[in-house]
Amino acid sequence: MKMSVADITFFLIGISVMLLFARIFGELARSVKQPIIVGEILAGIILGPTLLGLFWPEVFQNLFRQSENVGIAFEGLTTIAVVMLLLVSGLEVDLSVVLKQSRTAISTSLMGLVVPFFIGFSMGYFFPDLLGIADHSQKLVFALFIGVALSITALPVVAKTLMDLNLLKTEIGTVIIASAMVDDLIGWIIFSIILGMMGTANHGFGFETTFLLAFAFISFMLIFGRKIFNYVLPTIQNKLSFPGGVINFILISGFLSAAFTEYIGIHAIFGAFITGIAIGDSVHLKQHTREIIHQFITNIFAPLFFVSIGLRVNFIAHFDIVIVAVFLLLAFAGKVIGCGLGAYLGGLKRWDSLAVGFGMNSRGAMEIILGILAFDAGIIEEKVFVALVIMALVTSITSAPLIGFALRYKRKEKLITLIDPKLIIFSTATDKKTLISELAQKVSEIIKIDKEIIISEVLKREEIMPTGIANSLALPHAKINISKPVVAIALLKNEIDFDAIDGIPSRIVVLLLTPQNDNELQLKLLSEIAKTFGDKKRVDELLKDFSPDSIFSNLQKL
Amino acid sequence: MKMSVADITFFLIGISVMLLFARIFGELARSVKQPIIVGEILAGIILGPTLLGLFWPEVFQNLFRQSENVGIAFEGLTTIAVVMLLLVSGLEVDLSVVLKQSRTAISTSLMGLVVPFFIGFSMGYFFPDLLGIADHSQKLVFALFIGVALSITALPVVAKTLMDLNLLKTEIGTVIIASAMVDDLIGWIIFSIILGMMGTANHGFGFETTFLLAFAFISFMLIFGRKIFNYVLPTIQNKLSFPGGVINFILISGFLSAAFTEYIGIHAIFGAFITGIAIGDSVHLKQHTREIIHQFITNIFAPLFFVSIGLRVNFIAHFDIVIVAVFLLLAFAGKVIGCGLGAYLGGLKRWDSLAVGFGMNSRGAMEIILGILAFDAGIIEEKVFVALVIMALVTSITSAPLIGFALRYKRKEKLITLIDPKLIIFSTATDKKTLISELAQKVSEIIKIDKEIIISEVLKREEIMPTGIANSLALPHAKINISKPVVAIALLKNEIDFDAIDGIPSRIVVLLLTPQNDNELQLKLLSEIAKTFGDKKRVDELLKDFSPDSIFSNLQKL
Repeated sequence: MKMSVADITFFLIGISVMLLFARIFGELARSVKQPIIVGEILAGIILGPTLLGLFWPEVFQNLFRQSENVGIAFEGLTTIAVVMLLLVSGLEVDLSVVLKQSRTAISTSLMGLVVPFFIGFSMGYFFPDLLGIADHSQKLVFALFIGVALSITALPVVAKTLMDLNLLKTEIGTVIIASAMVDDLIGWIIFSIILGMMGTANHGFGFETTFLLAFAFISFMLIFGRKIFNYVLPTIQNKLSFPGGVINFILISGFLSAAFTEYIGIHAIFGAFITGIAIGDSVHLKQHTREIIHQFITNIFAPLFFVSIGLRVNFIAHFDIVIVAVFLLLAFAGKVIGCGLGAYLGGLKRWDSLAVGFGMNSRGAMEIILGILAFDAGIIEEKVFVALVIMALVTSITSAPLIGFALRYKRKEKLITLIDPKLIIFSTATDKKTLISELAQKVSEIIKIDKEIIISEVLKREEIMPTGIANSLALPHAKINISKPVVAIALLKNEIDFDAIDGIPSRIVVLLLTPQNDNELQLKLLSEIAKTFGDKKRVDELLKDFSPDSIFSNLQKL
Repeated sequence: MKMSVADITFFLIGISVMLLFARIFGELARSVKQPIIVGEILAGIILGPTLLGLFWPEVFQNLFRQSENVGIAFEGLTTIAVVMLLLVSGLEVDLSVVLKQSRTAISTSLMGLVVPFFIGFSMGYFFPDLLGIADHSQKLVFALFIGVALSITALPVVAKTLMDLNLLKTEIGTVIIASAMVDDLIGWIIFSIILGMMGTANHGFGFETTFLLAFAFISFMLIFGRKIFNYVLPTIQNKLSFPGGVINFILISGFLSAAFTEYIGIHAIFGAFITGIAIGDSVHLKQHTREIIHQFITNIFAPLFFVSIGLRVNFIAHFDIVIVAVFLLLAFAGKVIGCGLGAYLGGLKRWDSLAVGFGMNSRGAMEIILGILAFDAGIIEEKVFVALVIMALVTSITSAPLIGFALRYKRKEKLITLIDPKLIIFSTATDKKTLISELAQKVSEIIKIDKEIIISEVLKREEIMPTGIANSLALPHAKINISKPVVAIALLKNEIDFDAIDGIPSRIVVLLLTPQNDNELQLKLLSEIAKTFGDKKRVDELLKDFSPDSIFSNLQKL
């Protein structure tokens, strides 16, 4: 049987329409600062049985159900799409990040797995009807699935959210990313075990064989495969045409691993994901190559996959408010409590831990893929699938605003709010040391801390690198044992040389003391101060009218 | 009907194996300086019924014929692949190049169409058996097809060949590219008319309707579409996420046009090709976007398509030496005579015209796509298809060496072959003008040209930019009315300042005179001379032993 002209025509139109709607709604989502996949899934719901199929059933039928051939061709295409999507997600995983933040990450990811899994499993086992179970004889599998479904975090969505919030490289961001990686990895392993238990997918392999083979595959890939990829990548990049050779190599490895995991009874995407991690870990993989693969897959294949989700079921007909509400409740409770607690036990501050919990709550793509597999395998029915997709969307959409809410106190640590008029002094000192002693004295009067510690810490820093910036500003600083940052400002009668970059001696000296172990805050405030004094004209005006009071009011205008 | 686990497994393995073999043989082809597609097609012949199917039929069967579903999924994928391939080929077409070289290009492309078409059509009509006709009642269609098959040139292969030979931006290269574009365009139009005549593909559209719709589509795309794309591209690039938005837009436009042309009874790829031209013509399309699309499609989709060619038929069983020989003979005769003559009439030199003929002879991908369509449409049988593929391969492989052969005279215009010992003088001049007069005098004694013209042209050039290079070398030059380049060398007793970059006055002055209108040759020789004198040590040695004879022999060693 071959594809007819009509088949090919509608296959091509179908792809175009899916890409077009994905783009339109993806961009709409982006414009309201939502993850693009939210828009893409929405596009699918609009094009699918929910809306288009309801109002213009014949158009829907023609576009996506033209013939069995078109259906199969679409299935082949979305299979490749989702395999490539997971391959790219794997490439984005950075194992070294996990190791760097190991203590907090382990605690967060462990609690972030155990708590939601426990909540999900118990609910699924003891109150399966609340969650819409279809076949009570499969209660154990169902409960296990609910547990896993609540435990998984969507790495790509999380990474995107953190990037948007400018948190990706911060401590909180790193903890979230590292924990999400670990959760994803373990979550998928458990899920593949469930699939194995169901025996939906194996070729005579028993559950134990599937599990052993999967375990062997993961161990091999993450231990040896990683090294092998790292070893062969430079050769491939040098000997074969670039970047074609590497792109090919990555996709071939991904597809072959996908075929292997599909064959042993887990899903194809799992192999692609693990292989992506193993390849992406190589330092030799060039940014250029990542970029080409990433752009093409996230712009062409990922949208085709996400839109295809909405084509599967009618989201309105199968919408069950109780199931949706229960899912949402369990999802939030499990991840926010689990991860928040984990991060707190791992040493983070209270609000930061909450932010981690909200961050880990994004389910996005992963959840939905899991849902599709479970739906196809008969573990869940339409209404649960719909609830899962909605839960994934809601947790993803709310993640960014909730993180922002948890971290709102950070925004308050702005320079101007830290400046205390009592800590602006007028000094006649003629050398660094005297001046810093004067400032330290003043600070120690306000906050209870030994002035000698301040002096010695500040001078130590000064020795490593002088802190004269430019525009007559010097910025001595230190991290000491305090809980809130302190800013003290000295206006000098006599210029003191702080070895500024522009060679001009300083007349304004801002002493910045920040809590220990908070590199981030120190860097943020230092750069804010430097920026505040960056405009030479304004600083000159400041220096003209040279009194503590006017400085304070002028600073507020800067 | 859904794809089973086995289907998905073998679909993924099939893709991996195809990509792997395509890469291996593609790189092998590249290592022997052949177009990569030659290797990719070879990979397909090895994986297909010809070899793998012959020796391990069950492996072949398992890999690519696992089930009907896998077959359909592969067909869907290769359909998308070839549509995208033509879209990219279209993007590479630069209409402005055609216009710039319009006279020569029109003459070359016209003759390059008419002559092969005439030869092919007459042979197909009067000696159809020699070409392996299957159904004599379809003699007219068959003859028309042979005519078109011989007229088409494979733009992507041609462009690659010219790039490899470093000829892409030269006059010859531009003429070849421009003519190939015109030939491709017209060839495809004629071919679509043939398909229309056969009525294989229409939905009740008559031949005339198909033709009119195709004509309307082409006119619309190349006149208005082009402007529309050029107008909307900046908006898309600025407003949507970059480069995702543009990549999406290009593919959506390509797929929709492909669906349209498929629907009206021409093949999908035609619409993609024309749309590619219309979009690629926009000055707003960024290199970065082109690169991502180009890399991904040429490295993933193009190989899948080229390998799939070999999977179709058994190339040994259907190899008919007579048909292959006749095809090859006609192909070479038609294009080399037609295009060569066209280029010559268009104003090129004799050997350059021959080079154009050889360049236009590459059939590559286009021919094969045509062959597949004709094969699928029942116009030709296996043995003709095999002959077509072999012809496409042979004409592509031989193109580069034959161009090199035709242009071997250009290589002879190397510096050392141009140096005449009689034109090496020893001068006591102390200023530029005297020296150049001396050199011009000497030159005018050997070739009959007014010495005043030389002097004035050289000094004019010298005024615009002094020609002192470095390492005591000066390089005065001019283009004058001569047919061959002339080199005259002066060894100076007294240093003369030619404002060299390194500030050192010159002691060796090489006067270079080249024919007018040959920028390329002048640049080539100038850079060769500069390179020859680039090694300071060697020049110092040259200056030590300072006599015309030793200079001549030393120069030959440089």
